[in-house]
Amino acid sequence: MTAGPASLIGKKYPSKKHAEKVFSYLNSKSPEKAKKANFFISGEDLELYKYCDQTKPFRQNRYFFYLSGCNIPGAHVLYKSEENQLILFLPDVDKEDIMWSGLPLSKEDAEKKFDADEIKFVADIKEELSKLKTKALTTDLNNFNKEFWSFLVEKDSDFFYALDEARAFKDDYEIELMKHAAKITDNCHLAVMSAVPIETNEMHIHAEFAYHALRQGSKNQAYDPICCSGETCSTLHWVKNDGEITEDKRSILIDAGAEWDCYSSDVTRCFPVNGDWTKEHLEIYNLVLKMQEETYKLMKPGANWEDLHFKAHRVLIEGFLELGIFKKEYNVEEIFNAKVSAMFFPHGLGHMLGLDTHDTAGYANYSDPDPFLRFLRIRRKLEPNMVVTNEPGCYFSPFLLEETLNNPETSKYIDRTVLDKYWYIGGVRIEDDVLITKDGHEVYTKITKDPKEISDIVKAGIQKGKSAFHTVV
Amino acid sequence: MTAGPASLIGKKYPSKKHAEKVFSYLNSKSPEKAKKANFFISGEDLELYKYCDQTKPFRQNRYFFYLSGCNIPGAHVLYKSEENQLILFLPDVDKEDIMWSGLPLSKEDAEKKFDADEIKFVADIKEELSKLKTKALTTDLNNFNKEFWSFLVEKDSDFFYALDEARAFKDDYEIELMKHAAKITDNCHLAVMSAVPIETNEMHIHAEFAYHALRQGSKNQAYDPICCSGETCSTLHWVKNDGEITEDKRSILIDAGAEWDCYSSDVTRCFPVNGDWTKEHLEIYNLVLKMQEETYKLMKPGANWEDLHFKAHRVLIEGFLELGIFKKEYNVEEIFNAKVSAMFFPHGLGHMLGLDTHDTAGYANYSDPDPFLRFLRIRRKLEPNMVVTNEPGCYFSPFLLEETLNNPETSKYIDRTVLDKYWYIGGVRIEDDVLITKDGHEVYTKITKDPKEISDIVKAGIQKGKSAFHTVV
Repeated sequence: MTAGPASLIGKKYPSKKHAEKVFSYLNSKSPEKAKKANFFISGEDLELYKYCDQTKPFRQNRYFFYLSGCNIPGAHVLYKSEENQLILFLPDVDKEDIMWSGLPLSKEDAEKKFDADEIKFVADIKEELSKLKTKALTTDLNNFNKEFWSFLVEKDSDFFYALDEARAFKDDYEIELMKHAAKITDNCHLAVMSAVPIETNEMHIHAEFAYHALRQGSKNQAYDPICCSGETCSTLHWVKNDGEITEDKRSILIDAGAEWDCYSSDVTRCFPVNGDWTKEHLEIYNLVLKMQEETYKLMKPGANWEDLHFKAHRVLIEGFLELGIFKKEYNVEEIFNAKVSAMFFPHGLGHMLGLDTHDTAGYANYSDPDPFLRFLRIRRKLEPNMVVTNEPGCYFSPFLLEETLNNPETSKYIDRTVLDKYWYIGGVRIEDDVLITKDGHEVYTKITKDPKEISDIVKAGIQKGKSAFHTVV
Repeated sequence: MTAGPASLIGKKYPSKKHAEKVFSYLNSKSPEKAKKANFFISGEDLELYKYCDQTKPFRQNRYFFYLSGCNIPGAHVLYKSEENQLILFLPDVDKEDIMWSGLPLSKEDAEKKFDADEIKFVADIKEELSKLKTKALTTDLNNFNKEFWSFLVEKDSDFFYALDEARAFKDDYEIELMKHAAKITDNCHLAVMSAVPIETNEMHIHAEFAYHALRQGSKNQAYDPICCSGETCSTLHWVKNDGEITEDKRSILIDAGAEWDCYSSDVTRCFPVNGDWTKEHLEIYNLVLKMQEETYKLMKPGANWEDLHFKAHRVLIEGFLELGIFKKEYNVEEIFNAKVSAMFFPHGLGHMLGLDTHDTAGYANYSDPDPFLRFLRIRRKLEPNMVVTNEPGCYFSPFLLEETLNNPETSKYIDRTVLDKYWYIGGVRIEDDVLITKDGHEVYTKITKDPKEISDIVKAGIQKGKSAFHTVV
């Protein structure tokens, strides 16, 4: 399987609708600017590494993709709102490049593929821009031929606002793409859980995930896979993925997602390396699962994301009280107010998801002095058709907890003897992708998070044994 | 297996020797500049994608790596030739980054790992540079803090020359790294040839190769894998890798190489998708093999690379005369002089190989009017300790051959009826990595190119069948 979702066969990525949507957000923010507004966005072009004839891996400009559905390097798009006309400019044909790279998409095929009123070429841009009555709004002046465009285009913060807000609310076509990416990701996580006998290094987990994504046609990961074992599970964005998976490293955490047509998926699963959960690992796993379950109950239009995040902290605190990590002489609100849980769950509950893994319009405030809120990537109310991740976590990082443990104001809540039993786990995070619906939400990543089922999958993989897999080196 | 070569355990990458070597080339080119010369090179830093909080894949500046052996983003190196002192500057420790990325390498561990006289931090650079009596030579002013460095450093073409020449001749340590990358690559090619039953799309070949490289600890491919089937084999740098492998596509071409510690390998193999060579495919395969064998006979110090390239063309012409693709009424030299073979073998015989896949100091001239020489990436005599690729090819590309076939001056040599039997193959390329030794050469990529052995490997894979592989989706 390398093809896209069957439901989209014969349909085009709705770039024209996207342009209209962006226009309508611009119009509501600034009717004056919207008058005769034109949008001009340059896609990314291939770029060479310095002192080298190799090109860097290509990643399309997401704003450009949103208005074009086009993943070809060196293309541009113009939307003229007065005429409601969208023109896609493809790169001029470079005969010499055909020898190296093959034939480019023909104009005819481009007309069939893209939702544009007209397909033109880069050589036509100057004339098209010169005909405009007003400067076109753009996202980037530096990309391409700066001197020339600066007469014809201008950057504008309201344009960014309109693009970001439009992208925040996914249409049916986008949702299908995201669900397809999620399906690939589910399969990859299942493959990783099933392949434990041949995974003796974190990089083997990375290899297994990326292999199955590529086999399903997902050439790019949505982000660098995070593959942790034992104590590295406490490093939030561990991407070195080079640790040996030894007997004493009982916990695995993999945070990885495939990309489909520039749309992201983002899923985290944890499992015990031999299929048997240790007492402490399972306790923390069930607690994080509860953090996720309790926040799902609140996840619907109108809910403030901060409240969900605070709920997750309260569930964590309750759990720590039950486990004895927090001393029972204190109550939940006291501990919550002292922000003692901040460094056990230092990141936010989730983020917007879409063309970017950390998608637009979350309006994070990374300079917020409140340690609960500083890394929260959504600071707004939920609305239908947003897609977000729900990813509570609980970590035991000596580095992160140093201050909490050294400061008597916070350390007094913590029973060190109990806490010390948990360091070896590193951390647990459970992450799924969620569509906000009219009445509630839909979790559309499906790989199991039930600890018993996970245990069974890992053990079935071990049973099947090394012989059933690739000849590995 | 994810560890490096056993022969290098306990040894350091010889960055200091490299600095001395660069100095000696600079001194021989320009003794005046070499006086009190200092070298300062900034490594690459992590860079964000535009409008996005994700970093681009990191690829170290090869000049920096050559003088440091350091693959950490945001590091810098200073070599003071008068004192023969090498200082490596590591990034200042960013406490917040530890939460996301984990602990950085400590100064003590860096001292053990790197061949530097002193380990300092970025914060120390200003003071160190200010102490110099002369401006330091550098490769790049734009990387980092331009205003400041421009007082203290200067770009210099002789410095580039010295770096490039030094890099052209590999020392024992570098050769071990390159042989390790080659060993990984050999294993990957074997895996691809053995996995035909599950390869129904070019992307599956890509996945198989990258999976086995990653499993062996090679996180980066030396270059984007080129995975072709049938007619796409005629596109020299085909990297879309998205074609279905159908019954009528009998020929597979894979050009891919793993990277180890920033050093490249670069290998191409071809095989028939069902293990049975067709008559025409085998004819062309044997001809390309002969091009490689005949050029090996000339491959030794003192040989001019252009002569080897011309030899390959003559072997191709002889073969085409035997096959009847070229008309027997003409002789080899006539056809050679008319350059009729140029578009059947449009690229060069090979290139320098090292830190870059197309390594330094080949001195290609891409504006050479001679079609035989325009894409030849080595334009010098061979010397001991150079590493090069030997990669003859033969292609049947309607696009490439259009002019040759339409121009009576060249088409008169070609028998179209015979030629027409070969289009379906696309092309054949055989590529290996070769160390030039004192007396000759050593081909150190070992995956078989014997057509019978290849056929046996593919058939054994088919025999073993789908059941022996991953559960695939």
